[in-house]
Amino acid sequence: MNAGTRWLNEVVWDEQGLLPAIAQDADTGEVLMFAWMNREALALTAERGEAVYWSRSRRKLWHKGEESGHIQKVREIRMDCDGDVILLRVEQVGGIACHTGRRSCFFHKLLGEGTWEEVEPVLKDPAQIYSPK
Amino acid sequence: MNAGTRWLNEVVWDEQGLLPAIAQDADTGEVLMFAWMNREALALTAERGEAVYWSRSRRKLWHKGEESGHIQKVREIRMDCDGDVILLRVEQVGGIACHTGRRSCFFHKLLGEGTWEEVEPVLKDPAQIYSPK
Repeated sequence: MNAGTRWLNEVVWDEQGLLPAIAQDADTGEVLMFAWMNREALALTAERGEAVYWSRSRRKLWHKGEESGHIQKVREIRMDCDGDVILLRVEQVGGIACHTGRRSCFFHKLLGEGTWEEVEPVLKDPAQIYSPK
Repeated sequence: MNAGTRWLNEVVWDEQGLLPAIAQDADTGEVLMFAWMNREALALTAERGEAVYWSRSRRKLWHKGEESGHIQKVREIRMDCDGDVILLRVEQVGGIACHTGRRSCFFHKLLGEGTWEEVEPVLKDPAQIYSPK
C-alpha cells in the first residue's frame, strides 16, 4: 500500500500527536483491541500492511506481535467522519489479540446485577506467549 | 440494569476523567462510532440501557440521539483488559449512527494508491435529521 503523505495529511491528530485506533477482526467483526497511533505508526501500518501502534506507556512504536508473534495483517484501513479515529480491519495471526492470551481485549461483560464477568477464555498462557524464545 | 457504583470503581479513567467508548452494532458487528464517556455517562448508559456519552467539544453529557432520534439501545457493555476502554454492543435505532447520515462513522476507506474514498452511502440528509421538529 502506498504510504504517500497526502492521505496522512487528512488525518487529525490530538495535541499529543496521537489518535485512537480500533482493531476489528475482518472476518468475524469482533472488536479485538484498542490502541493509539502517531503519524509514523499509521504510515508504517499502511506501508507494511501490519498494525503498528504507539505505546504511550513505553513511549515508542509498537509493532503489534513483535514479542508474541500475534501480528495483525491489515486488510483495510478506515477513518471516521471527523478524521480523528482509525479503524483497522485485520486478520489476527494466532487468533489472540490480548496480552492476557484471549482472542479479544474486551472480555469483561457487565452483568445485570452490576458486576463484570470474564466471558472469554484464555487460549494461551501469557507466560508462554511472552517467554524468551 | 443496576448502576451500583462497585463496577464503576473498576473502570480506569484518564487524567480528564474520561475513557474511550466504541459502539458496535450488536447484530452485524459493524463498528458504528467512537466517543468518550465520563463516569456519569457510563453510569447513565447502564441505568437507561441507552448510550450516553460525554461531548468533549460541548463539555456536557450527550444522550446519543437526543436531537436526531438515532438513539442506541445497549445490549451489552464490555470493558477491555486494562479497564480503560468501553465497548457497547448496541441496536442502532434508525440505522444511522453518523451525523453525516451514514450508518457508520467509519466510511472513509484507504485505497491502495493512498487516497481516502467514501465507501458508505448517505442514508438521510443531515439537514433533515437535525431540522427543528
